[in-house]
Amino acid sequence: MVHSVSAFAPATVGNILVGYDVLGLCLDTWGDTVSVTFQDAPKVSLIEVKGDKGFLPRDPEKNVASALIGHLIRDKGITRGVSVSLSKGLPIGSGLGSSSASSVAALVAANTLLELNLSKQELLEYALLGEEMACGSAHPDNVAPCLFGGITLTTSEHGTRSLPVPEQLFATVVHPDFSLLTSEARKVLPSALPFSQMIQQVSSVAGFITGLYESDYGLIKASLHDYMTEPYRSSLIPRFDEAKSAALKAGALGCGISGAGPSLLALCQGEEVARQCEVALQTIYSNSQISTKTLVTKIPSTGARVLS
Amino acid sequence: MVHSVSAFAPATVGNILVGYDVLGLCLDTWGDTVSVTFQDAPKVSLIEVKGDKGFLPRDPEKNVASALIGHLIRDKGITRGVSVSLSKGLPIGSGLGSSSASSVAALVAANTLLELNLSKQELLEYALLGEEMACGSAHPDNVAPCLFGGITLTTSEHGTRSLPVPEQLFATVVHPDFSLLTSEARKVLPSALPFSQMIQQVSSVAGFITGLYESDYGLIKASLHDYMTEPYRSSLIPRFDEAKSAALKAGALGCGISGAGPSLLALCQGEEVARQCEVALQTIYSNSQISTKTLVTKIPSTGARVLS
Repeated sequence: MVHSVSAFAPATVGNILVGYDVLGLCLDTWGDTVSVTFQDAPKVSLIEVKGDKGFLPRDPEKNVASALIGHLIRDKGITRGVSVSLSKGLPIGSGLGSSSASSVAALVAANTLLELNLSKQELLEYALLGEEMACGSAHPDNVAPCLFGGITLTTSEHGTRSLPVPEQLFATVVHPDFSLLTSEARKVLPSALPFSQMIQQVSSVAGFITGLYESDYGLIKASLHDYMTEPYRSSLIPRFDEAKSAALKAGALGCGISGAGPSLLALCQGEEVARQCEVALQTIYSNSQISTKTLVTKIPSTGARVLS
Repeated sequence: MVHSVSAFAPATVGNILVGYDVLGLCLDTWGDTVSVTFQDAPKVSLIEVKGDKGFLPRDPEKNVASALIGHLIRDKGITRGVSVSLSKGLPIGSGLGSSSASSVAALVAANTLLELNLSKQELLEYALLGEEMACGSAHPDNVAPCLFGGITLTTSEHGTRSLPVPEQLFATVVHPDFSLLTSEARKVLPSALPFSQMIQQVSSVAGFITGLYESDYGLIKASLHDYMTEPYRSSLIPRFDEAKSAALKAGALGCGISGAGPSLLALCQGEEVARQCEVALQTIYSNSQISTKTLVTKIPSTGARVLS
């Protein structure tokens, strides 16, 4: 029996512009690491939180990583104690699934340490509790790709499906250095949407999914338009319009808000275009003295994983 | 060179509950036949209209079949005259693509007679003019499946795609004997929709398309919910709620309004369930002394065709 396990869970992009609350995409490189170790005291302790600039709760019942492990342990009738360390590798309030990464890394680490053999679908149910704890509602669009990798569709009635990822699909992500809480970003969404916008959103999500299955980059490009959140949230993100224009001019298939923002996602055909988008986005923000972090990546087929 | 050509174009189901204006499904058996013959007079004549109970215009410039052929002839600089006969084999105002069937049968017949060799995508553009003429707006959700067969996705920016049709997918259609004009059915739609309903509609269309690609009947079933039109149009259709309940109880994957109604579409896994749905739907309407026509069919992979 192992006594200590670490797991990494990546940053993710919720919505992917067209699939509000149901589609999500896995990134790599950026992510959270949670380490769990058996301890003598029969409780869950939170012994370290790093990389959060002091933002996250230190109370083990309030920090999502330790709180979820506590819930899991009680739920499974486990009596052993566990100490938890969380190392944040992605910014909080970035629209990149920060709370999901903490939740999923904690669950994946604990699943191995406690030898529970829970499936990804079972872990998803626990991770949704983490989303509820951190964001006030159990949205699957970050936790699902974080667990499953790739691009995921999660519906409330029918669990998670992995969608195909075309071979040349790359993501460029830019995180302008300020946070936007999901709760704030949700406040600006209207209670109703024009019928005409919804016809377009339905067309967009239908075209995007078909484009993924057919590896049809033209159809993906024609479909990457967000009529549900961008018209309302883009004003919360400085330089959004210019950044989006610059990404499209650099050849992106589409560009929009990652999750609740303020990070932006550009999807591109091929790494070269993705790199050009990265430069274009960096230029817009550096011209405004806003510092950024950027990432260019293929969409990885695996999500969270135990570190050897 | 042939001197006379007949073409058949089938009934179709627009929207398929979840894809307002973009998804459509091809039926068979029911449909319109258009015959075209060269004539000496250098004009387009409408020599016969059958099966419409006198409802459709006899003026060749106002009847969609002859008017579209006239447009095509002028557009292609053809100087020969053509006489047109239209035989309606599906009810008008039924929500089964009546005007589309006439338009498409006319275009497919004329394309062969005039040896134009236009592609289906090119014919679609002309057929959309017919929809504009008949319904006041150029919606592709009936003309596309009528031309291409199967299940189609048509987006304004990127033409038509044929979606996969799972092997055991059957359609049961019931047409209660009264008409509902598309223009009337459009009037009851609201100008705005609750945001929460739109989250569900996006989830539905995403799940439905994924279900088609994966032949995942459970996901199709979980996804066949219409939040955009059914809440507003169902009250225009007598016994809608009971009919839908009866179809679901008989095992349908989903049941809802075909196009703008009043016909209903039930999608089923397997012919046996589809036949049980047919009986259930007939029973509801016969109990109310409303006569019906019903159809059970696999989704045919070909749409309109020249008759030998």
